[in-house]
Amino acid sequence: MRYELYYWTGIQGRGEFVRLALEDAGAPYTDVAREQGDQAIMPFLRGQRPGAQPFAPPFLRAGRQVIAQTANILAFLAPRHGLVPASAASQSYALQLQLTITDIVAEAHDTHHPIAVDKYYEEQRPAARQRAASFCGERMPKFLGYFEHILERNDGRHALGRRHSYVDLSLFQLMAGLEYAFPRTMKGLRRRTTHLRALSERVADRPRVAAYLASPRRLAFNEDGIFRHYPELDEA
Amino acid sequence: MRYELYYWTGIQGRGEFVRLALEDAGAPYTDVAREQGDQAIMPFLRGQRPGAQPFAPPFLRAGRQVIAQTANILAFLAPRHGLVPASAASQSYALQLQLTITDIVAEAHDTHHPIAVDKYYEEQRPAARQRAASFCGERMPKFLGYFEHILERNDGRHALGRRHSYVDLSLFQLMAGLEYAFPRTMKGLRRRTTHLRALSERVADRPRVAAYLASPRRLAFNEDGIFRHYPELDEA
Repeated sequence: MRYELYYWTGIQGRGEFVRLALEDAGAPYTDVAREQGDQAIMPFLRGQRPGAQPFAPPFLRAGRQVIAQTANILAFLAPRHGLVPASAASQSYALQLQLTITDIVAEAHDTHHPIAVDKYYEEQRPAARQRAASFCGERMPKFLGYFEHILERNDGRHALGRRHSYVDLSLFQLMAGLEYAFPRTMKGLRRRTTHLRALSERVADRPRVAAYLASPRRLAFNEDGIFRHYPELDEA
Repeated sequence: MRYELYYWTGIQGRGEFVRLALEDAGAPYTDVAREQGDQAIMPFLRGQRPGAQPFAPPFLRAGRQVIAQTANILAFLAPRHGLVPASAASQSYALQLQLTITDIVAEAHDTHHPIAVDKYYEEQRPAARQRAASFCGERMPKFLGYFEHILERNDGRHALGRRHSYVDLSLFQLMAGLEYAFPRTMKGLRRRTTHLRALSERVADRPRVAAYLASPRRLAFNEDGIFRHYPELDEA
């Protein structure tokens, strides 16, 4: 089956977590909006297509099924492509970790949009500076400390079990995004993120991931996405 | 099996979505922190207990398994207690809807904490007013319009299928919280939320839910929780 991924063009965004899983699995997929434009997304959001109605992209079409919400898409894909252990308990734990990644990703987004998602960053700069100070000073150390500990209490190399999973892919993407957006803060956290950084390097070296990252399909981070580099927000 | 629910005392918070499912199912559970105090939560957060390490409450202990993240806990409980259809596609759709409820709940929280979760509301009032204006003026109509449409395109009475599910329970709690926090805004949305309000009434009338709501186990909403009533934030 060929999957159809729907996500806004021009940014990595939340779609990138799904894209990494599809690429790492070698699963055939069409990145629909990149071929047809963002307007291909709209009929689904309006409920004019069969299957579940998404609130927002990313969503995935798999046969007649439409699946939305990043973590939910990953929970759907992973058992089909060996990206999570087979046991229900492992899949529940993987989803728990992924939802915690969802939480820090939302907070990373809100550093540049603390007031309103429908207004520009430039319209909410003073609040953004304050929120970013809290994110860099309190939240990043807390979240990354948690994930570092999760790796440590497991085998030091994987988020769960003794095998690569979609959570490892998402941790790679989280670290890449935070490195781009908050290089100074991440430098300050280097000694407290040794397992996370080593895991990120191993993920980046996986053959299909490496091929993907070197391809034009991997967009660069930019200031339209979730992880944005505004130096004034990275002063922790 | 008797479940153990762990959540901060004194507020409904995110724990309430789990509590409602347990109560509606008639599932035996101990609300551990309410019996032993909030310190009962801490060893789990520090990774000093067997099972998955949660980032934050709520989490549920079910035998040897520890399950965290509200939507993940509900996805675990629901098939065991008839609160979601048996098919994988239905369970995936239910989780998608629940994660969208998670999103609006997080945004409702951030109206009073737009800058930093570790600071008081009183320290972030100007930003809170701005964020609340966007939430009441843009986000609430968008999210509630979405859920209203989800009910309409289904049978008008349930979020999914032809039967009560955990998503209906969570929609009830969402509506109750928003009614408490933003009564003026909700009044303005009355005509656009007829299905949601009717669903909320039916849920509140379910015998076990009604008994729960009338019991001392149901705390009142208050200004320490997620849904807080600050009149100055409800001026849309």
